[in-house]
Amino acid sequence: MSAEIICVGTELLLGNILNINAQFLAQQLASLGIPHYYQTVVGDNPARLKHSIEIASERAQVLIFTGGLGPTPDDLTTETLANFFGVTLVERPEIIADIAYKYAQRGREMTPSTRKQALIPQGAEVLPNPTGTAPGILWQPRPGLTILTFPGVPSEMQRMWQETAVPYLKSLGWGKEIIYSRTLRFWGIAESALAEKAEHFLKCPNPTVAPYASRGEVKLRISAKAESEAEAKQLISPVEQKLQQIGGLDYYGADDDTLASVVGKLLLGLGETLSVAESCTGGGLGQMLTNVAGSSNYFLGGVISYDNSVKVSLLGVNPEDIAQFGAVSAAVAEQMAVGVRSRLSTTWGLSITGIAGPDGGTATKPVGLVYIGLAGPNGEVQSNEHRFGQARERSLIRHVSACTALDHLRRLLTRI
Amino acid sequence: MSAEIICVGTELLLGNILNINAQFLAQQLASLGIPHYYQTVVGDNPARLKHSIEIASERAQVLIFTGGLGPTPDDLTTETLANFFGVTLVERPEIIADIAYKYAQRGREMTPSTRKQALIPQGAEVLPNPTGTAPGILWQPRPGLTILTFPGVPSEMQRMWQETAVPYLKSLGWGKEIIYSRTLRFWGIAESALAEKAEHFLKCPNPTVAPYASRGEVKLRISAKAESEAEAKQLISPVEQKLQQIGGLDYYGADDDTLASVVGKLLLGLGETLSVAESCTGGGLGQMLTNVAGSSNYFLGGVISYDNSVKVSLLGVNPEDIAQFGAVSAAVAEQMAVGVRSRLSTTWGLSITGIAGPDGGTATKPVGLVYIGLAGPNGEVQSNEHRFGQARERSLIRHVSACTALDHLRRLLTRI
Repeated sequence: MSAEIICVGTELLLGNILNINAQFLAQQLASLGIPHYYQTVVGDNPARLKHSIEIASERAQVLIFTGGLGPTPDDLTTETLANFFGVTLVERPEIIADIAYKYAQRGREMTPSTRKQALIPQGAEVLPNPTGTAPGILWQPRPGLTILTFPGVPSEMQRMWQETAVPYLKSLGWGKEIIYSRTLRFWGIAESALAEKAEHFLKCPNPTVAPYASRGEVKLRISAKAESEAEAKQLISPVEQKLQQIGGLDYYGADDDTLASVVGKLLLGLGETLSVAESCTGGGLGQMLTNVAGSSNYFLGGVISYDNSVKVSLLGVNPEDIAQFGAVSAAVAEQMAVGVRSRLSTTWGLSITGIAGPDGGTATKPVGLVYIGLAGPNGEVQSNEHRFGQARERSLIRHVSACTALDHLRRLLTRI
Repeated sequence: MSAEIICVGTELLLGNILNINAQFLAQQLASLGIPHYYQTVVGDNPARLKHSIEIASERAQVLIFTGGLGPTPDDLTTETLANFFGVTLVERPEIIADIAYKYAQRGREMTPSTRKQALIPQGAEVLPNPTGTAPGILWQPRPGLTILTFPGVPSEMQRMWQETAVPYLKSLGWGKEIIYSRTLRFWGIAESALAEKAEHFLKCPNPTVAPYASRGEVKLRISAKAESEAEAKQLISPVEQKLQQIGGLDYYGADDDTLASVVGKLLLGLGETLSVAESCTGGGLGQMLTNVAGSSNYFLGGVISYDNSVKVSLLGVNPEDIAQFGAVSAAVAEQMAVGVRSRLSTTWGLSITGIAGPDGGTATKPVGLVYIGLAGPNGEVQSNEHRFGQARERSLIRHVSACTALDHLRRLLTRI
């Protein structure tokens, strides 16, 4: 038995979008232990889509389609599949009702074209779409061949996959020999340095350990092949412990942990609170912190002091220090942290001021120069200077700045 | 004539890496005007690779391979191609010399396995690899069929493509007819509604118009086939104008424009300034605004009033109104906007308060309920209630809330 992925969309053939659906589905098939030998991308063209269905249906038993399920005329996946297998489409009233409900919730009226999404091949099951309007199908058009369709929007597709496809495939007996992975997350160490430290583990056959790096973060993915999740976890656990030891304080969490969620857990455990004062990140640090559900239990808020006048008026930064040392300086970072902590009455105040670029850099204060300030409950104030590099883009400098600020607080709270 | 992309690598089938090579090549083919109808991903397996070569060589005249050119035993692309077309491999001394030179430069000795990379099908041309060791080939194994191979490392592949494939394809006459695209961006209208309004244009052959939707935004991509960029722009221009008219105020920009950059241009043009007060977005609105380089010219900053105490202390919201109407209410949104505008002395104050979920919703105030407040220079204050739907995830509700706030200000500034 094997599965194939067929991604439908002219936007993929024009290179307008990156095919992240193929990667997600490939990972999912691997974790369920389902063999998968081919992926196809085809445009919004019925003849070529039929040709792809023909080829794939001869070599695989499960065909997974993404894209082409929406309300517009170029959304052709469902009708082309029905046509290929010689089955008529029927309008499903429960889909109409679901779409009407979702439109009503958003205060919109259903337009005639949206009805198209309720047409499903006779005999197919509906795969509900909890977040969007276009449902998918689960269909056996002939014995030994199963078809699953999903919309092209990655967030909709992923949720539908988790909620509908995974239980179905497991009910067929898949996921018995599974690949189970755990991702360890590190901040403050280079990929090559961590890979050298963990060299011995990178050669292990089961579990395997592979390093990845992106946007300042380094990850080690530990993957075990086993007959159950429990068995895989047993294989992973000792390796994970040793890799955590190797990482030391640079290791901050695993899987879905983020620097913000880890800081949040530490604050919650200590019963402490946090406020932020942001200049060059402009709200990005607060955004990261509040991306964690339940963050209102420890994060009270902050000040976006993008303009110097706001640093003075809302944070109490001394304008003479801004004039003397510049807005991007240790002195200003520290006063921002102290100011926000005191005005919001929190345990900790965390601040960022820096030059995100592309303009505004000078010889002594280049693009990428960032000061992070931290003020705490016993009058302690500290600041750290970072040089995130002139070669990095504005958005990456901002991202790395916010992560590094969280990492400073994490290290401090971990040591306490 | 058409081209096909075949990406070779088990790491793609396992989902270990994202297929950015396919997107790069797709964009390149589009810009050269070379039709491209299928992409295939296949693993490091000679039988399956042969099967893919067979299918692709029957429907396309140019086959572009990435991956499988390195020194390891699972790098099989070149020998599988030679094998499929019944041609022997010959060792090319100039490749051996090039690899030896590159190894010496890095202080390494050539290992026997690296010699493998010098084996090229008889009659094929070498495509030099300026940055890596594995060269590609340019080969016509039979009349009317051209094969180009590239390594899988994106940086190596891209440089080789630009330096070798582009001149070759242009010498064949390609690149005379190009595909040029422009993306129009809309906010506040559903994809189906816009597609219905623009129905006539969705059927045009040149330029073509295709709708896309993601994260609350709707896009129309206009693509023209022409002999030059100037000619393509001439074809696109009248269609663009009509689609802008159709979109009305829902149209906000094109290509790299964002709601934040468009609002920024409007403010800059008017010589006006903005501050923000954010509750459920926690800094996300400020982050969007400051993602635009040069935003310090009109964006002064704001207050992240995540906790109610901050709404009172830093924004002057009446605590009795919070008690009576709730923090998520029109009254509080308006007071937040008025408060931040006055404390930061800006022309406009923009505020967001809402329930991002997953918890915190009630029957009367469900998850997704968001109020956006706006305070302006002539004492005007307004607020708008939005219901972004309980089905949407926290991060999407937050994203759509920040975009909608920017959109409110955009509409107001556009009407002025």
